[in-house]
Amino acid sequence: MTNGVATTATAFAPASIGNLGVGFDVLGLAIAGPGDRVTAERQDAPGVVIAAITGDGIGADAHLLSRDALSNTAGIAAAAIWQAGKGSGGISLTLHKGTPLGSGMGSSAASAVAGAVAANALLEQPLEHSAVLEAALEGEAFASGARHADNVAPSLYGGLVLCPPGRLPHCESLALPDGLVSVLVHPHLRVDTAAARQALSESVPLKTAVTQSGLLACFVQACARGDRDGIAASLRDVMIEHQRSRFVPGFESVKAAALEQGALGTSLSGSGPSVFAICDAAAGDAVSAAMVAAFESGGVGCDYWLSSASAPGAVLESVS
Amino acid sequence: MTNGVATTATAFAPASIGNLGVGFDVLGLAIAGPGDRVTAERQDAPGVVIAAITGDGIGADAHLLSRDALSNTAGIAAAAIWQAGKGSGGISLTLHKGTPLGSGMGSSAASAVAGAVAANALLEQPLEHSAVLEAALEGEAFASGARHADNVAPSLYGGLVLCPPGRLPHCESLALPDGLVSVLVHPHLRVDTAAARQALSESVPLKTAVTQSGLLACFVQACARGDRDGIAASLRDVMIEHQRSRFVPGFESVKAAALEQGALGTSLSGSGPSVFAICDAAAGDAVSAAMVAAFESGGVGCDYWLSSASAPGAVLESVS
Repeated sequence: MTNGVATTATAFAPASIGNLGVGFDVLGLAIAGPGDRVTAERQDAPGVVIAAITGDGIGADAHLLSRDALSNTAGIAAAAIWQAGKGSGGISLTLHKGTPLGSGMGSSAASAVAGAVAANALLEQPLEHSAVLEAALEGEAFASGARHADNVAPSLYGGLVLCPPGRLPHCESLALPDGLVSVLVHPHLRVDTAAARQALSESVPLKTAVTQSGLLACFVQACARGDRDGIAASLRDVMIEHQRSRFVPGFESVKAAALEQGALGTSLSGSGPSVFAICDAAAGDAVSAAMVAAFESGGVGCDYWLSSASAPGAVLESVS
Repeated sequence: MTNGVATTATAFAPASIGNLGVGFDVLGLAIAGPGDRVTAERQDAPGVVIAAITGDGIGADAHLLSRDALSNTAGIAAAAIWQAGKGSGGISLTLHKGTPLGSGMGSSAASAVAGAVAANALLEQPLEHSAVLEAALEGEAFASGARHADNVAPSLYGGLVLCPPGRLPHCESLALPDGLVSVLVHPHLRVDTAAARQALSESVPLKTAVTQSGLLACFVQACARGDRDGIAASLRDVMIEHQRSRFVPGFESVKAAALEQGALGTSLSGSGPSVFAICDAAAGDAVSAAMVAAFESGGVGCDYWLSSASAPGAVLESVS
């Protein structure tokens, strides 16, 4: 600390399941385990620079990321919060990736949130969560080409978050019924998020949009009532999945395997190729094993994670 | 009664606000006061006939309706429940309209529900609500050209109902926060429901669909939490209203008048021309007066109704 102002801060932000199948661009769920870590250090020179990007394990492709702070979601988000909070001088970031690029696990969002949270902690007067979300959204918009919060919101707040585009930065935490967990399976394939978004049809049949919105409404109501059967009846996507699943070899068999093991619902995580399922905690092992086996039977290796439905969001790990 | 089986039954079914702005084809709200009444009488000859159609007050245009039972929503719905419940012999219906045609007040649905409920009561083993809903949907599909439940469901069950097309006949009752009422203003204009539906664009921009679904999700969540401000922030339509409001002279000024008097939200009721608002009970008189005045300043006369947000659904008034 210098005169009571922090000089270094480290933040961790988790990966997440964007869309959660039923809520394209509107719902997201944090997962436990994988995530990105950003250390921000105060520097005299104004502006934001990225001193280093490292990564290991599933984050080993971190070297592919740009170290230009304005071409990197962590840098853009940190710069945005620094500007919003009128930071004096500048900051230098070190980014450690623990999420794989192009995985549909909210990798760009995890970096953006960690960057914004760490930089925010160095402000003389740190801003509120909603401002941090806004800053992270700037980073996400750069990465994906659209200002959607279905990864940054759960990565920041944790758990299941409703983040309607028409009301941002307003978000609402929802709760899945007790006893449910998420399974996230990450096949060793890569999808370009921005390209996946561009591949989506710009319009949808009104009938499809209405069916999907009805399912989302039922899903929200089922969460409010703690209604497990309501989740099972509504957790599906008739609007987006078929447009994206063709980029994921083996998707249909992975989905079928999850449902056969009792998953309440399953779909692509974000734009894929990762696939998630929601199931009873007791079925978590069987569901994950079946999904992994289905990918592997097609010759595709996988990682997977089992998470509580209320996995924590971003954490400021140290400030000094 | 003959051998314990009823020979005559009379049912009343209320008018309703389809879509409720935020939930096209997915949400509907019953209103108190206007509605249709059907008396069903057992007859020896098989099949369903309509003996008479009457109407008075706002239902005075009832003489325009077909007395062919298969061209009338009450007749179609009664025939559908009679078939589903394996009724022996036939029934003769008398329909009394208390709702105006082409008003956006769910007139066709009120007739269908009243017809189905009355006929159901004459079955040796009356069927469950979900079967009555299915039968009423047959009538509604004839009238509007689509199988949507946003009028028949609230007219049958009362209150606010979530009736997702992808899950029918499944419906869920929602509750608006305490202290809210509905205002329904019916200008003396007529819109052809089927034509209004055909005028809708068959596809919507993905972005618009997502924004609208996010608003609906927030609305459902606000109902679950009893969150008045959440209702105010989400009760609007960016997908359908602009396509239909051009058929309703004065719509924008009526909407502005409602909001100026403190309405939480306002939009077309069904396909219009009726316009609804949701507001605090204390503001109900001011909101209705302002909406009526706005229509009248354009030379259009109106009727209006103030209802509790939990107005009752269909009632079997007598069985003998």
